[in-house]
Amino acid sequence: MNQLPIEVEVKLPVEDFGEIEIKLLEGGALLEEIVMQRDHYFQHPSKDFSKTDEALRIREDGDRLFLTYKGPKFDPKSKTRTELNTEISSVEDITHILEQLGFKEVGIVSKERKIYLYNDMLFCLDNVESVGLYIEVEKIIHDKKDFKKERDLIFKTLKELGLDPQKNERKSYLELLLEKIKTEKK
Amino acid sequence: MNQLPIEVEVKLPVEDFGEIEIKLLEGGALLEEIVMQRDHYFQHPSKDFSKTDEALRIREDGDRLFLTYKGPKFDPKSKTRTELNTEISSVEDITHILEQLGFKEVGIVSKERKIYLYNDMLFCLDNVESVGLYIEVEKIIHDKKDFKKERDLIFKTLKELGLDPQKNERKSYLELLLEKIKTEKK
Repeated sequence: MNQLPIEVEVKLPVEDFGEIEIKLLEGGALLEEIVMQRDHYFQHPSKDFSKTDEALRIREDGDRLFLTYKGPKFDPKSKTRTELNTEISSVEDITHILEQLGFKEVGIVSKERKIYLYNDMLFCLDNVESVGLYIEVEKIIHDKKDFKKERDLIFKTLKELGLDPQKNERKSYLELLLEKIKTEKK
Repeated sequence: MNQLPIEVEVKLPVEDFGEIEIKLLEGGALLEEIVMQRDHYFQHPSKDFSKTDEALRIREDGDRLFLTYKGPKFDPKSKTRTELNTEISSVEDITHILEQLGFKEVGIVSKERKIYLYNDMLFCLDNVESVGLYIEVEKIIHDKKDFKKERDLIFKTLKELGLDPQKNERKSYLELLLEKIKTEKK
């Protein structure tokens, strides 16, 4: 079997997008898309994804729909992991199928995502409902041995843009959302 | 939640399609489609579908692709069960996702299916590779309480066409194929 695709990803919390967006545009970044995303996360029937560090999600991405599996993160300095995507045709139908197979919907994350293409990377400026503002920088690779090189290239680019890669957040938006809900309940 | 769709289905082994096809056409049946179908069946990560009488399958249906879940059969006289379908975009991608979730591909069934619409039912004339010739008559309903009425209507129509509904085969093509392989190995 060929290697599965890997998403090299770094995520940073930010106060606002103003300065970073100006720098991206000055550097020649191309605005790819502004899209509303609504992600439905599911728990596995027989293992705890929060322990195995995996995820299964249905994404409503503007007019398109995707089913995505994310494998365990294998790099302590980033969110890099196997990521598998396939386009699907109906949130309702795939949800019914997943539920019959024993998967349970555990949360929904909604965000506005502004996507820039810059230096061969995707810069996602995310305004996440009830969570906050984050920048996710990502690149898909097909050979695991390239991941450190690509990650370090992302770090370098972030620094050039005045951002600190040390502030890397490895938690998912779902985890951040669930943590917030838990804190608010106390 | 609304009721999930139910497929009322009766399946009969036949020697050939000649006579039944003539009778269908004489009765005003419409030929809907002749299609090559290739079905990939999967086992669940934590339960044995052959015991729970469920199924998960990817169907290559001519140029289209579907993911299908089938629930336990609840009628001893037919193959009637919950059936959920959703169109998907790539066999390879969804297979990779299912494999990462712990599902295992257990068999592939290939057939030529000729579909007639007759009396508001679908008559599928199936030439199943390594298994044989079968007729599947099916109808999707959305209210479980209608299933006996619809099943008996199928039985009545089969009798009018000179076929014997008592010969109903409740095993799936996958089960028939796996049994055949097992017998041949002996």
